[in-house]
Amino acid sequence: MPTSQKQPFITLTTDFGTADHYVGTMKCVISGICPEAAIVDITHEIAPADLLSAAYSISQSAPYSPPGSIHVIVVDPGVGTSRRAIALQRNQQTFIAPDNGVLSLVMSGTAKPVVRELRNEKLWLPSPSKTFHGRDLFAPAAAHLAAGTVQWSAFGPLIQDCVMLPDLQPAAEDQGRWRGRALSVDHFGNVITNLPCTLAPLADKTFSVQTNSHAIRRFYSTFGESETADPFIYEGSSGYIEIAINQGNAADALGIKVGDPVILELNS
Amino acid sequence: MPTSQKQPFITLTTDFGTADHYVGTMKCVISGICPEAAIVDITHEIAPADLLSAAYSISQSAPYSPPGSIHVIVVDPGVGTSRRAIALQRNQQTFIAPDNGVLSLVMSGTAKPVVRELRNEKLWLPSPSKTFHGRDLFAPAAAHLAAGTVQWSAFGPLIQDCVMLPDLQPAAEDQGRWRGRALSVDHFGNVITNLPCTLAPLADKTFSVQTNSHAIRRFYSTFGESETADPFIYEGSSGYIEIAINQGNAADALGIKVGDPVILELNS
Amino acid sequence: MPTSQKQPFITLTTDFGTADHYVGTMKCVISGICPEAAIVDITHEIAPADLLSAAYSISQSAPYSPPGSIHVIVVDPGVGTSRRAIALQRNQQTFIAPDNGVLSLVMSGTAKPVVRELRNEKLWLPSPSKTFHGRDLFAPAAAHLAAGTVQWSAFGPLIQDCVMLPDLQPAAEDQGRWRGRALSVDHFGNVITNLPCTLAPLADKTFSVQTNSHAIRRFYSTFGESETADPFIYEGSSGYIEIAINQGNAADALGIKVGDPVILELNS
Repeated sequence: MPTSQKQPFITLTTDFGTADHYVGTMKCVISGICPEAAIVDITHEIAPADLLSAAYSISQSAPYSPPGSIHVIVVDPGVGTSRRAIALQRNQQTFIAPDNGVLSLVMSGTAKPVVRELRNEKLWLPSPSKTFHGRDLFAPAAAHLAAGTVQWSAFGPLIQDCVMLPDLQPAAEDQGRWRGRALSVDHFGNVITNLPCTLAPLADKTFSVQTNSHAIRRFYSTFGESETADPFIYEGSSGYIEIAINQGNAADALGIKVGDPVILELNS
Repeated sequence: MPTSQKQPFITLTTDFGTADHYVGTMKCVISGICPEAAIVDITHEIAPADLLSAAYSISQSAPYSPPGSIHVIVVDPGVGTSRRAIALQRNQQTFIAPDNGVLSLVMSGTAKPVVRELRNEKLWLPSPSKTFHGRDLFAPAAAHLAAGTVQWSAFGPLIQDCVMLPDLQPAAEDQGRWRGRALSVDHFGNVITNLPCTLAPLADKTFSVQTNSHAIRRFYSTFGESETADPFIYEGSSGYIEIAINQGNAADALGIKVGDPVILELNS
Repeated sequence: MPTSQKQPFITLTTDFGTADHYVGTMKCVISGICPEAAIVDITHEIAPADLLSAAYSISQSAPYSPPGSIHVIVVDPGVGTSRRAIALQRNQQTFIAPDNGVLSLVMSGTAKPVVRELRNEKLWLPSPSKTFHGRDLFAPAAAHLAAGTVQWSAFGPLIQDCVMLPDLQPAAEDQGRWRGRALSVDHFGNVITNLPCTLAPLADKTFSVQTNSHAIRRFYSTFGESETADPFIYEGSSGYIEIAINQGNAADALGIKVGDPVILELNS
């Protein structure tokens, strides 16, 4: 957790876009409470209510952020309803989010995630709105933690029944097959699957990946190796198998959307 | 105003977009003059020359930013002409902008806004361009104020004839009717009106809102309460009446653009 | 270079977009190594692999950034191939980028640019990926330099054969003609040419600019002077001749793309 020696570090991940004042206003709230906090945007262009892409984005960034980091994730279609707000501690970092599964990938591999319900109203802005908890609840809670004016233990009670997203891990099927999904489609149109690179003998190239429409067998280490407009498989920087077209948009060409099935098949 | 104990805090609101170097270059200028300033983007995606949306955005963020904040707003279709540059002080904050009405909402409710013309050329970069005052005039003026190398009183003479945008406040009409406008349309397609929530007995749901094409009577406290694709009214986090469709785009569905009329009618 | 008295200042220019976690993750890496660094985005919306626009953007921002600035430019279609990574020092600033010509405009006018190959693997993250050198190589190298844990001289060997982009400078032709190009098209649709304003007697208005489709003779100092939808020429804040339409999109109207020819002709 942040100590007096270190600069507090807060990241923001939302589906608010950047055309409105919403993200800027959250930063104003944070700076008003903890002026010394560094605030870094992971992304604000999560598609509205796309929990899977948000879960993916924060799970990719957090391992690279400093100890004591506080991550705020606000993709929150249930804002104002009885859905809970939660705060997870893991690997010396804190994740503050609605309890809707958006932290599922961050928690994966943790047998018993350590989570509190964010119920302490002293951490909120006065008279919070029912539609902008990013400003009125999540940002001030993160800023108070960053400023050291509150400990995580004062957020609220420990809970053990967090909402988790389904089907995050690929399912093993018969005969060296795994059924996975598209976790995300990036700015370049590259498709990030949830199939860990460790599942396949990448160096041997003895496997294929099947989408709804295509079977892809070509494997390259780098984009530069692919000299055609055909889709290929590569070892993503995410640690997952990814699908791309060099200087093209693989998701568009293959008709793949976030959540679509992707099958890995080893050639025995 | 910023003192030596506090970290200077500067916000930026422009219509420059983020595809070009413009905003980055403004930040380079600020950091060159005042390296310790924290710089926060409110938004750079104001539609070109959309003074109403810009006025709305900064009026929403400023109340949440720390005392001493310096807000720079550059939506400036008249750049390089004889339009003045101004600096407003209000609630221990400073607002630096072209004199074209973009500060109208920030000033509203102030009987006599305290405004200076920004005429002190020592605050500008040498040989300023005629088309990029964000870089050459507004950013360095803000940075010098943040750094404490100049006082606001040295910006230029006090003026009392600022340009104000027309029709910002809703007009009372006969029989419990107010004629308002769409102040902004956000990333989700929600319509923010200029009708304060205090005008209507929201809890009693005995009112309607009329746009060019629709009369809307349904009122909900949260998005989650609305289970259909019909538009509904809610108490916006802005303090204004807003119009939305749960998981849909109300502005598109209703054909509402920024500035369009919105009528509030109480059911007596 | 950064000293203990100054806050390190790092800028980022990429074609990563802002919809993914990529830029945020680079900032996490930087803050992990050098928490006190201020990080400023120049832009992340360079079109994929558009080296010319990236070269233009960083060449416009760098002159306004503080001494000791470290600029990271990652427009890198050859990532993971044998293309080199380089670090240029110029005017007390450091530029870290792939060796693909993206620093060409920053180097222009320098007889012998001082460049090192970035070969010191101690500066990289462990087990770097082959597709995300922004995270694994460029960001940590910049952060180590910013933190002072390494000197630029330890980056790798000096080299003298950097890749340069062709046709960056306009070519003089017969009879007071220069053949230039469109360097960039901005958010407003304004066309930035590579024709320096010093080439033409702007005040005398005795010249024309010819694109593929139009000859433009109208010259204005400011946008406000142009009262029609006709394209006009003006002295850009870039120092180059630019083409615009007041409250319109000149690039669309004239059919100009980045790299297209633009001819300057003096009327003798």
